[in-house]
Amino acid sequence: MRVLGVDPGTFKMGVGVVDAEQGELSLAYSCVLSPPRSKSLAERLHYLHERLVDVVRQCQPAVVAIEEPFVARNVRAAMAVGQAQAVAMVVAAQHALEVATYSPREVKLAVTDYGASSKEQVQEMVKLLLALPEAPSSSDEADALAVAICHVNASRAGELAAANS
Amino acid sequence: MRVLGVDPGTFKMGVGVVDAEQGELSLAYSCVLSPPRSKSLAERLHYLHERLVDVVRQCQPAVVAIEEPFVARNVRAAMAVGQAQAVAMVVAAQHALEVATYSPREVKLAVTDYGASSKEQVQEMVKLLLALPEAPSSSDEADALAVAICHVNASRAGELAAANS
Repeated sequence: MRVLGVDPGTFKMGVGVVDAEQGELSLAYSCVLSPPRSKSLAERLHYLHERLVDVVRQCQPAVVAIEEPFVARNVRAAMAVGQAQAVAMVVAAQHALEVATYSPREVKLAVTDYGASSKEQVQEMVKLLLALPEAPSSSDEADALAVAICHVNASRAGELAAANS
Repeated sequence: MRVLGVDPGTFKMGVGVVDAEQGELSLAYSCVLSPPRSKSLAERLHYLHERLVDVVRQCQPAVVAIEEPFVARNVRAAMAVGQAQAVAMVVAAQHALEVATYSPREVKLAVTDYGASSKEQVQEMVKLLLALPEAPSSSDEADALAVAICHVNASRAGELAAANS
């Protein structure tokens, strides 16, 4: 299973593609999409849409897993997250890909066994879980990979539950 | 000038296209986009994206004017508005159209001279301003037309200010 994880933001969008084969996780691709800050919001969203389409076409994931905060600092922040999420969801639906959303707590629990872990802990655990030579330098990239790993774990748990029922 | 007004929502998105020629406003097109409620959020956003692309291709507006609340009932509501806005912005940017956003208060002031007017008042004033035989039956449709009218007024005010400076 190949999962595209997305950490949504309108200035920085983390993108992480993870392969899960026979219990082994590995990194397929990761980056941070950073539309030019001088661009308008509409142009930034368009930029993110085009780049995400490129990633989907190149990496051919089966699923798009998106981080979805249930709280936000304020209404503007919540709207910005919604805007970035929508871009990822439209790209997924345009390519007939399954979409799953996970709360930040679920994502952190998936990689660190602790729902309130720090950004550095997430980066370090993503490095260990994917057997990377170094931790991802960007927390957006690490978060996107963590969302993808979270989806792999959730799918495995779902399969186990189905097998035991 | 032809303006596409959008009242963003992920279940109901108001769409209203208004022509402004030599001080005269007229209705070009309006509808409410209602993605099936049974669909997932990603599928609904995709549906809205495809339908809005159809509207832009058929109506060929010069500008997309979008209502942008600065307050929301809660974080979920704010994220949903952001998601629907993002779809409209991506469609605008994909067609290289100008994007303008207006607060609900600005929109209401543009059509009713009163920033806190009721939905019914907006529907009635849109009918009068566009010389329609009947008020739009849906408040989403009326709001979308009101956003387009708001943009026409704002553009005129801008032109007057430029001419007087």
